[in-house]
Amino acid sequence: MKASKQQNRQAGRADKVRIIPLGGLEQIGMNITAIEYGDEIIVIDCGLAFPSDDMLGIDLCIPDITYLKQNQEKVKGFFITHGHEDHIGALPYVLQEINVPVYGTRLTIALIENKLKEHNLLKNTKRKVVKHGQTVTLGCFRVEFIKTNHSIADASALAIFTPAGILLHTGDFKIDYTPVFGEPADLQRFAELGRKGVLALMCDSTNAIRTGFTASERTVGKTFDAIFAEHTNNRIIVATFSSNVDRVQQIIDSAYKYGRKVVVEGRSMVTVIGIASELGYIKIPEGTLIDIDNLKNYPDEKTVLITTGSQGESMAALSRMASNIHRKVSIKPNDVIILSSTPIPGNEKAVSKVINELSIKGAEVIFQDTHVSGHACQEEIKLIYSLTHPKYALPVHGEYRHLMTHKSLAESMGIPKENILIMSSGDVVELSEDSLKVVDHVQAGAILVDGLGVGDVGNIVLRDRQNLAQNGIIIVVLTLEKYSNQLLAGPDIVSRGFVYVRESEDLLEEARKVVEDSVQDCLDRHVTDWGKLKNIIRDDLSDFLWKKMKRNPMILPIIMEV
Amino acid sequence: MKASKQQNRQAGRADKVRIIPLGGLEQIGMNITAIEYGDEIIVIDCGLAFPSDDMLGIDLCIPDITYLKQNQEKVKGFFITHGHEDHIGALPYVLQEINVPVYGTRLTIALIENKLKEHNLLKNTKRKVVKHGQTVTLGCFRVEFIKTNHSIADASALAIFTPAGILLHTGDFKIDYTPVFGEPADLQRFAELGRKGVLALMCDSTNAIRTGFTASERTVGKTFDAIFAEHTNNRIIVATFSSNVDRVQQIIDSAYKYGRKVVVEGRSMVTVIGIASELGYIKIPEGTLIDIDNLKNYPDEKTVLITTGSQGESMAALSRMASNIHRKVSIKPNDVIILSSTPIPGNEKAVSKVINELSIKGAEVIFQDTHVSGHACQEEIKLIYSLTHPKYALPVHGEYRHLMTHKSLAESMGIPKENILIMSSGDVVELSEDSLKVVDHVQAGAILVDGLGVGDVGNIVLRDRQNLAQNGIIIVVLTLEKYSNQLLAGPDIVSRGFVYVRESEDLLEEARKVVEDSVQDCLDRHVTDWGKLKNIIRDDLSDFLWKKMKRNPMILPIIMEV
Repeated sequence: MKASKQQNRQAGRADKVRIIPLGGLEQIGMNITAIEYGDEIIVIDCGLAFPSDDMLGIDLCIPDITYLKQNQEKVKGFFITHGHEDHIGALPYVLQEINVPVYGTRLTIALIENKLKEHNLLKNTKRKVVKHGQTVTLGCFRVEFIKTNHSIADASALAIFTPAGILLHTGDFKIDYTPVFGEPADLQRFAELGRKGVLALMCDSTNAIRTGFTASERTVGKTFDAIFAEHTNNRIIVATFSSNVDRVQQIIDSAYKYGRKVVVEGRSMVTVIGIASELGYIKIPEGTLIDIDNLKNYPDEKTVLITTGSQGESMAALSRMASNIHRKVSIKPNDVIILSSTPIPGNEKAVSKVINELSIKGAEVIFQDTHVSGHACQEEIKLIYSLTHPKYALPVHGEYRHLMTHKSLAESMGIPKENILIMSSGDVVELSEDSLKVVDHVQAGAILVDGLGVGDVGNIVLRDRQNLAQNGIIIVVLTLEKYSNQLLAGPDIVSRGFVYVRESEDLLEEARKVVEDSVQDCLDRHVTDWGKLKNIIRDDLSDFLWKKMKRNPMILPIIMEV
Repeated sequence: MKASKQQNRQAGRADKVRIIPLGGLEQIGMNITAIEYGDEIIVIDCGLAFPSDDMLGIDLCIPDITYLKQNQEKVKGFFITHGHEDHIGALPYVLQEINVPVYGTRLTIALIENKLKEHNLLKNTKRKVVKHGQTVTLGCFRVEFIKTNHSIADASALAIFTPAGILLHTGDFKIDYTPVFGEPADLQRFAELGRKGVLALMCDSTNAIRTGFTASERTVGKTFDAIFAEHTNNRIIVATFSSNVDRVQQIIDSAYKYGRKVVVEGRSMVTVIGIASELGYIKIPEGTLIDIDNLKNYPDEKTVLITTGSQGESMAALSRMASNIHRKVSIKPNDVIILSSTPIPGNEKAVSKVINELSIKGAEVIFQDTHVSGHACQEEIKLIYSLTHPKYALPVHGEYRHLMTHKSLAESMGIPKENILIMSSGDVVELSEDSLKVVDHVQAGAILVDGLGVGDVGNIVLRDRQNLAQNGIIIVVLTLEKYSNQLLAGPDIVSRGFVYVRESEDLLEEARKVVEDSVQDCLDRHVTDWGKLKNIIRDDLSDFLWKKMKRNPMILPIIMEV
């Protein structure tokens, strides 16, 4: 390989590899990046995104993989950095279209398998478990999994050896010198790769605007211990991310130390702890775990519940407890509730709501020093640059402002401005020892999933939903006689989401008369184009309502012919 | 008064005063509290609230003042603590029903007058300007305005002397020993009242969960100076709350110091600065202020724009600049933008969006150390308790979790548990030297305003809007012949916000057939009750769509008779 690179260089043309981000670049987004060399493509991650507030009624977003479908025969496999939804969640959708093997570490693959099982796709999908330090060769690519730390166990950076040079993708990471489970991030390997020469570094930007160094996961364990020591007379309920296996381990450790039994509650929590404990990623002392139905057999102060809902999700266990609709657990005035998380941007109000509901029930809610981030802060990002000395910096995983700050960090680490590129979704970034540039742009972005429908809700439907949400709808129906154009029935007015009908009867009757006049006027003038008639009804009624109420409901005239 | 109180005591019955919160108790809520003694009522504040996310299409919420209307002849006046929307915003609505004088400090009254002018209510409303230290006697009440500090000038605490004792309401406050304008909070007066004996303290809880002491407004001025000193080659744009007159003063001071011209942009910013400068609450050096149209005559690095939009409000000036729809200002790559605020809970994502848009345009966005809170932290709250030694503590202004933490603070300051009460909206709290209790509950809460409609959108309409927003609507229309019940036209299916029609023609045709079968079946079975027929259509279509798509649109059958 080295020889060929040199030959290329001598010939004046360096080998080129292409990087094509196909999802969004948002913080909690659809992470999916194609790496293309010649006739071969591998894909890093395959995540989903949760809808933004204006995507009304949408369940989730998956990436638009048109480019991969168009190049189906080139695609060799998916390499997954870790098991979070924004990195694995779209696999059940995408694998139905591009059925290639999926590579990942043990816990990651186990979580993917659980997901595929739910979608009945397990049989048809090849999965390969890779250990940290191992390398997978796929066509012209060699992909090495490197140990990192993150808020889920078994996270990896990927070193992708291509004929054009080494690409290094950190995945989502932090550096934890004293992790709860397993080893610290393999900094030596980062350094070795740096010595070999890294062509491009794609590094996590989530915490790029935070100074300093993210604290070790163990610091949270110390807080748990302190809280458990202080509250020996209370039941303790801890809500956290189900995927944060090390966090759960530390709660269990504190529970065991203080002689408490542990109940696990919430679907995803039960699933993930089940998988993690089966694989040995979590160790539960015998007799510690009890079934939720046996909770009543123990005094409150001898129990701990570990539960979902730390983001205020309305259907999660903690929210259901807070609003009195959980079937098995009621909050008591003596309860101590630990929120072991910080709200993901956008969830702040939902979390506040849950805290308020818990407070009203008299419970004490603790949320200070009970969480550390899973992402690298500025000093960690700089450390990675310092170890790997990449030629090019392609910041990934963050909102634009995070990427911009990351760019400044990279500059401060000596990467020339022109060697730093903030990619956009669909950009085809071509890079070689000689150059870095966006050479093309392909279709990419989000496909919306609503119920079983994938992609059948688009901008027009969303705009309608927004309009309906803000203003409601008024339907005008009338029946006309064919040919004679006599009004046989109506116009009737039916509204939903507009005004409280019983108290606005006069208004609606006035509106009906406005429409009646418009229709009669049209018929008198022999307007026979129903499209025109509908427009006139819409305009007249809309004017009337705006003048009268300063409101703009959707108006939908329907004409039936008999 | 003292004599009569003593007599009452000797007679074994102390004089009783009632406190009735009528708005919400949320952080940014409708602040309005009735104080009732015998046949007389005065009202503290009269604010509006902005709708929560689930109040689709609602513009604002005003308090339900049924109780005041029922006791109209008792109501003597409104006493306003300061000029923020959540304390004055409902006046234009409420004064139309209860026309009594409004008392407040100079800036507060000026802001209220501006609001009344917009609603054409200025002529009919009596306003009285009160100075700090002055007392207004109204029936059995004497109300003293006491100087405090807050994020708007001229904020006041109110000492309400009643025959039952002194009630002390802090309003929204902080303690600023070095305010930008005017005096620090009048702590001596708080102490004097404490010596006299305060029956009940109603104290701001907004920052009750924050330890320490809120920093002086002046610290932000120092940050501005540092930013201006560092960015002598850039245009500077500062977004902040228009009502924070002291903040604006400091921006102007820095601008003047560094030889920059100042443009004020955004409707509320122009209005408030106009009022504040007219009244002398803000001092603008001559020649500093320029019109936005003259901006082009000065080099970028010699200008500062002060603008609205620090909360990411989509129609505010900064958002319009960020998304390229501002008519007079475009963001340039060399701009430095200071967000002088922290997001109010719920606005985090909107603020992030604006920062991202500004970053994409290459502007530098600064938001660290550029804001201080206007509310008291724990040490300030404790100080007030320490100075006033109230018999009863009634925490106000905060979410439930803030009120609960405030309660703990009050306990730590020696107030007995049974003397602390967290009030709910509508509670009638009766208190005397002898007792504190909730004796009744009256109608209270929020009235929703949508366009010109006040109260015509209620829970049913909101539930419809939520359903329409999530799932869209399917309308089924058909025309039947009277008496014979023959199907003359339809069933037709029209949908909005459901699926993209052109790509789902087959599905909609299938749905139409389902309805057609249902209708025909009913007609064959001589079902003549149209209510029944509609229910059958709704059920059958709903089943079909759920099985087919796992979706639940609103289904609205309309039957016309000819």
